[in-house]
Amino acid sequence: MKQYVYLFSEGNKDMRSILGGKGANLAEMVNMGLPVPKGFTVTTEACTRYYEENQQLDELVLNQINEAVERLEAVTVKQLGNPENPLLLSVRSGAPVSMPGMMDTILNLGLNDEIAKTLAKDEDSIRFIYDSYRRLIMMFADVVKGKDKEAFEKLLTDKKASRCVTTDIELTAEDMYDIAMESKKIYKRLTKEAFPEDPIVQLVEAIKAVFRSWNTERAKIYRQMNGISDKLGTAVNVQEMVYGNLTDDSLTGVAFSRNPSTGDNNLYGEYLEKAQGEDIVSGVRTPKSIEAMERDYPHIYKDLKDISKILERHYKDMQDMEFTVEKGKLYMLQTRNGKRTTLAALEIATSLVKEGLITKEEALMRIEPEKLDDLLHPTFNEEELRKAKVLTTGLPASPGAVSGEIYFSVKDVVKAKDSGQDPILVRIETSPEDIEGMNSAVGILTVRGGMTSHAAVVARGIGRCCISGCHEIVIDEENKTLSCNGQVLKEGEKISLDGFTGKVYMGVIKTADFKINGAFETIMEWSHQIKKLGVRANADTEKDAKTALDFKAEGIGLCRTEHMFFEEDKIFAIRKMILATDEEERKRALKEILPIQRDDFEKIFRMMSGKKVTIRYLDPPLHEFLPKNEVEISKLAKALKVTEDYLKEIIGSLKEFNPMMGHRGCRLAITYPEIAVMQTRAIIEAAITVTKQGHKVLPELMIPLIGDVKELEYLKNIIIEEANVVMQEKNQTISYELGTMIEVPRSTIQADKIAKEVEFFSFGTNDLTQMTYGFSRDDTGSFLNDYYEKGIFQKDPFKIIDKEGVGKLIMVAMKLAKATNPNVELGVCGEHGGNPESIEFFHKIGLDYVSCSPYRVPIAILAAARAAIKETK
Amino acid sequence: MKQYVYLFSEGNKDMRSILGGKGANLAEMVNMGLPVPKGFTVTTEACTRYYEENQQLDELVLNQINEAVERLEAVTVKQLGNPENPLLLSVRSGAPVSMPGMMDTILNLGLNDEIAKTLAKDEDSIRFIYDSYRRLIMMFADVVKGKDKEAFEKLLTDKKASRCVTTDIELTAEDMYDIAMESKKIYKRLTKEAFPEDPIVQLVEAIKAVFRSWNTERAKIYRQMNGISDKLGTAVNVQEMVYGNLTDDSLTGVAFSRNPSTGDNNLYGEYLEKAQGEDIVSGVRTPKSIEAMERDYPHIYKDLKDISKILERHYKDMQDMEFTVEKGKLYMLQTRNGKRTTLAALEIATSLVKEGLITKEEALMRIEPEKLDDLLHPTFNEEELRKAKVLTTGLPASPGAVSGEIYFSVKDVVKAKDSGQDPILVRIETSPEDIEGMNSAVGILTVRGGMTSHAAVVARGIGRCCISGCHEIVIDEENKTLSCNGQVLKEGEKISLDGFTGKVYMGVIKTADFKINGAFETIMEWSHQIKKLGVRANADTEKDAKTALDFKAEGIGLCRTEHMFFEEDKIFAIRKMILATDEEERKRALKEILPIQRDDFEKIFRMMSGKKVTIRYLDPPLHEFLPKNEVEISKLAKALKVTEDYLKEIIGSLKEFNPMMGHRGCRLAITYPEIAVMQTRAIIEAAITVTKQGHKVLPELMIPLIGDVKELEYLKNIIIEEANVVMQEKNQTISYELGTMIEVPRSTIQADKIAKEVEFFSFGTNDLTQMTYGFSRDDTGSFLNDYYEKGIFQKDPFKIIDKEGVGKLIMVAMKLAKATNPNVELGVCGEHGGNPESIEFFHKIGLDYVSCSPYRVPIAILAAARAAIKETK
Repeated sequence: MKQYVYLFSEGNKDMRSILGGKGANLAEMVNMGLPVPKGFTVTTEACTRYYEENQQLDELVLNQINEAVERLEAVTVKQLGNPENPLLLSVRSGAPVSMPGMMDTILNLGLNDEIAKTLAKDEDSIRFIYDSYRRLIMMFADVVKGKDKEAFEKLLTDKKASRCVTTDIELTAEDMYDIAMESKKIYKRLTKEAFPEDPIVQLVEAIKAVFRSWNTERAKIYRQMNGISDKLGTAVNVQEMVYGNLTDDSLTGVAFSRNPSTGDNNLYGEYLEKAQGEDIVSGVRTPKSIEAMERDYPHIYKDLKDISKILERHYKDMQDMEFTVEKGKLYMLQTRNGKRTTLAALEIATSLVKEGLITKEEALMRIEPEKLDDLLHPTFNEEELRKAKVLTTGLPASPGAVSGEIYFSVKDVVKAKDSGQDPILVRIETSPEDIEGMNSAVGILTVRGGMTSHAAVVARGIGRCCISGCHEIVIDEENKTLSCNGQVLKEGEKISLDGFTGKVYMGVIKTADFKINGAFETIMEWSHQIKKLGVRANADTEKDAKTALDFKAEGIGLCRTEHMFFEEDKIFAIRKMILATDEEERKRALKEILPIQRDDFEKIFRMMSGKKVTIRYLDPPLHEFLPKNEVEISKLAKALKVTEDYLKEIIGSLKEFNPMMGHRGCRLAITYPEIAVMQTRAIIEAAITVTKQGHKVLPELMIPLIGDVKELEYLKNIIIEEANVVMQEKNQTISYELGTMIEVPRSTIQADKIAKEVEFFSFGTNDLTQMTYGFSRDDTGSFLNDYYEKGIFQKDPFKIIDKEGVGKLIMVAMKLAKATNPNVELGVCGEHGGNPESIEFFHKIGLDYVSCSPYRVPIAILAAARAAIKETK
Repeated sequence: MKQYVYLFSEGNKDMRSILGGKGANLAEMVNMGLPVPKGFTVTTEACTRYYEENQQLDELVLNQINEAVERLEAVTVKQLGNPENPLLLSVRSGAPVSMPGMMDTILNLGLNDEIAKTLAKDEDSIRFIYDSYRRLIMMFADVVKGKDKEAFEKLLTDKKASRCVTTDIELTAEDMYDIAMESKKIYKRLTKEAFPEDPIVQLVEAIKAVFRSWNTERAKIYRQMNGISDKLGTAVNVQEMVYGNLTDDSLTGVAFSRNPSTGDNNLYGEYLEKAQGEDIVSGVRTPKSIEAMERDYPHIYKDLKDISKILERHYKDMQDMEFTVEKGKLYMLQTRNGKRTTLAALEIATSLVKEGLITKEEALMRIEPEKLDDLLHPTFNEEELRKAKVLTTGLPASPGAVSGEIYFSVKDVVKAKDSGQDPILVRIETSPEDIEGMNSAVGILTVRGGMTSHAAVVARGIGRCCISGCHEIVIDEENKTLSCNGQVLKEGEKISLDGFTGKVYMGVIKTADFKINGAFETIMEWSHQIKKLGVRANADTEKDAKTALDFKAEGIGLCRTEHMFFEEDKIFAIRKMILATDEEERKRALKEILPIQRDDFEKIFRMMSGKKVTIRYLDPPLHEFLPKNEVEISKLAKALKVTEDYLKEIIGSLKEFNPMMGHRGCRLAITYPEIAVMQTRAIIEAAITVTKQGHKVLPELMIPLIGDVKELEYLKNIIIEEANVVMQEKNQTISYELGTMIEVPRSTIQADKIAKEVEFFSFGTNDLTQMTYGFSRDDTGSFLNDYYEKGIFQKDPFKIIDKEGVGKLIMVAMKLAKATNPNVELGVCGEHGGNPESIEFFHKIGLDYVSCSPYRVPIAILAAARAAIKETK
């Protein structure tokens, strides 16, 4: 007979798939001898069975639940429904994969009129018991019956108003009794049935409600956003209640064994005195920081700290814990590997290695390469920051530095984002319903809540800058304004958030580049030691090259010569070249471009001394260099001393139906060999100059868009000839390599012939993906959404390499190429070169290097290391 | 020691590559015992050696020439340079591949002052000898020294003027002597050296001149146009002179053993009395037809006819012969397989089979499939022809029926063609320099020349309609007009040429469709028996389907459903569908389209009863159906009751950067499945109706542009579901096949997965070529010319399948597909399906069928048969 219910003592941390994350860890803690309220877990398999049985719990499962209750009664020496010695329970969801805030919880389960009456002995206990009872009724109405909590909360508010008090604690025992009784009436009014007095009925309904919560819209969206399977199901944890709100030495809190923002090895967290756990997570009251506990409750602090270290050593990772202190005794309610910022992830992983808890390889496997991107986000420019006007200061809940327009609802944020703005979501507090808006926002600002509030946790998870607990801000949702310290800001007005300091600024602040720190450098160093794949950067300017070097790129894998031309002072020369009517005129124009281009190359060669620099010959269709609007055309016509009509005619004649497959790449140089000649001269002259200055220059000359070996042969001859001419003129030899981009499907199946003619291939996976699929990247927007919605595509092939299609062609090309030229160097310079999943593929098939944008170099380095580690496993 | 010079008696017809075509056939005729003036051939290898030796004849070759001269002197019992018994020679070029009119000739070589004086005995012989001498001097100046003949010809013209006579024959012996002597003076003036008196010097210089003529610009262009290698070189034939201009019973002519226009089995040709061969070919004098010879010179006619039959039986093909009669004795100067019209080629090939001379297979191998295209050119509509006004009548030199604009120079013809006109080249006579113009013209009209003039021969070779010998026409080149029978036509005015009758008409005449004749049907029948590859037609309408059936297509391989929509009454419905703002509105519009489309399918199914009809689902991007200009937009907006701005906005939103790789093909049906649903319903309903009418309907439903098997699965489900719904509604089962186009590179490497889901593949080689190369067909015009000029491409990959690239991908796809679905039917429906070279490739790799435009079906059938024949060889 299949076991659908496990006592905590029967489980362990490896049973996550059936017990859920929370259940497995509760079991583990029980087995470690840590103080955990007793309980049991109804498995995820019971959840699956529940859905299979048409949303019913069948007898088999019900019997096992009853049996577990009996065993729990035995160990707690309490009885469910026994007024003299009642067992009170919490019921919490717990899926195999963490879904923070997405599932529902019911506390104080087991209470009914009779039990309440029996327990209620004096003023204090009456108030406490009926407060607990009213909470149960409200949560039950909400979670089990799907009724809004508003009517219940209004009872409390009205009562406080009638008593002219502001806090619950000031209400009398009688008041609480009244509220509880009134709650029952409201329950009946809303649900058309009486609140169930039978604790077993309460329990079974609560378990079913948790199972149902697995399929709420917001849970589904969260899973879709995070790639979690809908089939997993959730487990339900049923646990003896402990009360953080019972006495003055009762409290409840959450803690991290290390700082989840910075990774500092200090206990970090918050707590609320005389409160239940839900009060913290919901962010309604602003909690105290854990430092206060050290001062006010030193023994509890010590116990918590000790337990956190035990757990950390046990789990070999930073822990995120929930705890409750009832009458001075600490209970652990949950532990799990804590979510953290990327900064903290680096710090913690490197520290754990230094502490001997994990290996370097394990450390690297703990850091999602893509997450480094958060880190590489810029901070504010310090000078601008000094001049900026602070609006208010809150808690630095999630790091980052963003400027944007404020909006007060998810709907408005999404709309603003779609219209190209950088919306900042401003809320009193966030709730799971706000996920979409948080995802669409560049930053999040909340009035309430602490560092572990919903807003903070989610923001860190999705890498959004977030400032929480800005109490000075008052939001007027109706008029869509916020006021703060005398300032009133309307929807759409601009502010800036500094997620590192918690400061909110008026207006826009420019950002500065990211500065690399110690843990980051350690991770990079280890990655470099372990990875096999080379990592270069795509860099078109001296500045790009500098950034690439800062990030430890091993060379430049793609220097796009045309990008140099788009600068205003250079584009005029290239335009003259394009508008030349014969070869002579074109050559004269090219002569003007030569020194500009040579100068650019010199700067890059000097910067990349000793490292390879792959320079691609002119690639884009010429019309890209010509002006598009009337004003620009008129200006250019004047400058060139031609008529506007003439200029328009030229522009018109260069227009193409499908420019992606038109006159570009090597096709340009075949029509106008003089361009290739000029570029060759610029490269070789620059290389000679920089070599003479004592640098080692390693140029790789790359011809784009080759589809047939004859195109290559034609241009190769022209390039070699000019290179020889220049070297003879200057009486200096430069060794250079000649290669081609493989970016047209035909070149992959012609790779044997092409490889014979070159020293290297660089797979241009952007174009190769476009042509292999027949997808114009500029146009897929109109239909790829339909593909995702209909489940035809899971991933964007322009972000993650299409292993089955484009990847296969690359493998075909590699095999053919190696057969005729075993030494041919093989790299990738499409955007996939910076994508971790693609990098793993490129590592597996044996490419020599990837090249990506400078800011993605660390991601690529880490991804390459992880690919190497995975392979050895 | 290598032999560079062969006496005719040493060679044979199989030595064409070193003796050239003319030399090999002269040798063959000598060995057959036919009357041929004695001579020898300097080989093509001597030509190659000449170019290797820096355009010099080295001693080895010179010695062999001298030796051959001595042997020739021995057999002719004459001596070169001996005034008493001089050997006079002709020197003619002769390449391995026929290049009519491209190479140069020198006659009467061996004459000098002393020999002329010695031979000149009486009035007649003086005139004859000095006429021959002056011709030698002029030809030598022209061919060897590259001087214009004009000055020499002016001597003759001036002399005739001064004597008040109009023909050469009326000049006195003394006149001719004067002209010859004067010619020598002009020679000296032009060349700054004396005319060489030494016959051996004359011979060697003449041989070198022929070698040089291999590399003239016009020879190079001819070779490029005809795909002849520049490396072949030419041979030189040196032959004893015979004189068709010696006595009254001397004549010269050319003859075909059968009629080269119609293929009729009658001797066909022309001759000129008292003339040298060059006089005929140049078209200066209009010759007599061979029927006149039968009457005037019955014995010569009989000899010629007998020899023509001997040669035909020997060569097993129709012969094109040159002959000269000197003093009543017939000499054969050349024989070769005659060029012929396609009509004649069919007639001759089938006749030769009936006569038992060749096999059916040999007959098919003699007909270039591409040439059938000439035949399938339409003739004039008979009714229109009756009403048309005849301008004049000439000789029907090359068949066809064309209307176009008249131009008087090559330059103007080329310009007119580039600007989209159909130019007709009008010339007094054509010369090799006119090739480009003849190629660019739709038809050629000459004032002078006969059926075997330069214009006639070239026009038949390149399949242009040509009328020659229109003596009534007077051309005013300066004013660019022609006048004829009182009419004056200016450049650019329109006329029509009937190349079947020789009639020239005023204005434009509509053409009628081609009617199939006996020989054509025989060839098609044999081809059908022999070929293995299926041949279907691309046909979108009932009319197309009818044409396809007339041409014996075995089915429809591509029915483009969108083409139906472009008709004016249908496009409105499709536009409403495109402009629908939601699914409901779109479905309403589709409902209007359904009966239209169903009706089209019914007509096609009925027409193709018992044959497969492959229907492609909607393919082009939707913007193709929307109007482009203001007037149209305004009209449509009114009809749809929307504002112009709204309509423009929609049109704008559908605009794509690279529509070839945009929202089209199966991507449309994925976004709007309701379109596929409607089309499925139209097909199945039509099939049911036509089946009930007693026809056998074999629909193949084809989904375009599949790149991933999931696209296919999605649409397959939708199509099958709707087909089932329709069949249930109508209570009738229709069996149909489901397939996909393979036209995106990715689908070729995913073919194993795709093949599992379908019954057939149709390779769409147009798109596959575009995407494999990354060449947008609409844009390659701007650079592919550079590719041809620079020798990077030899062939247009959109016309002839790229075997190394696209072909390889097709083979990969076939192999993958057969592995998972051995029964998958494999065809081609790109334009390559009608190209003979591509068809041979498709046969070789084992495709099941090709599909091409209806008018190319016969070409494809013949090409498929030839491919099968080649394979068995």
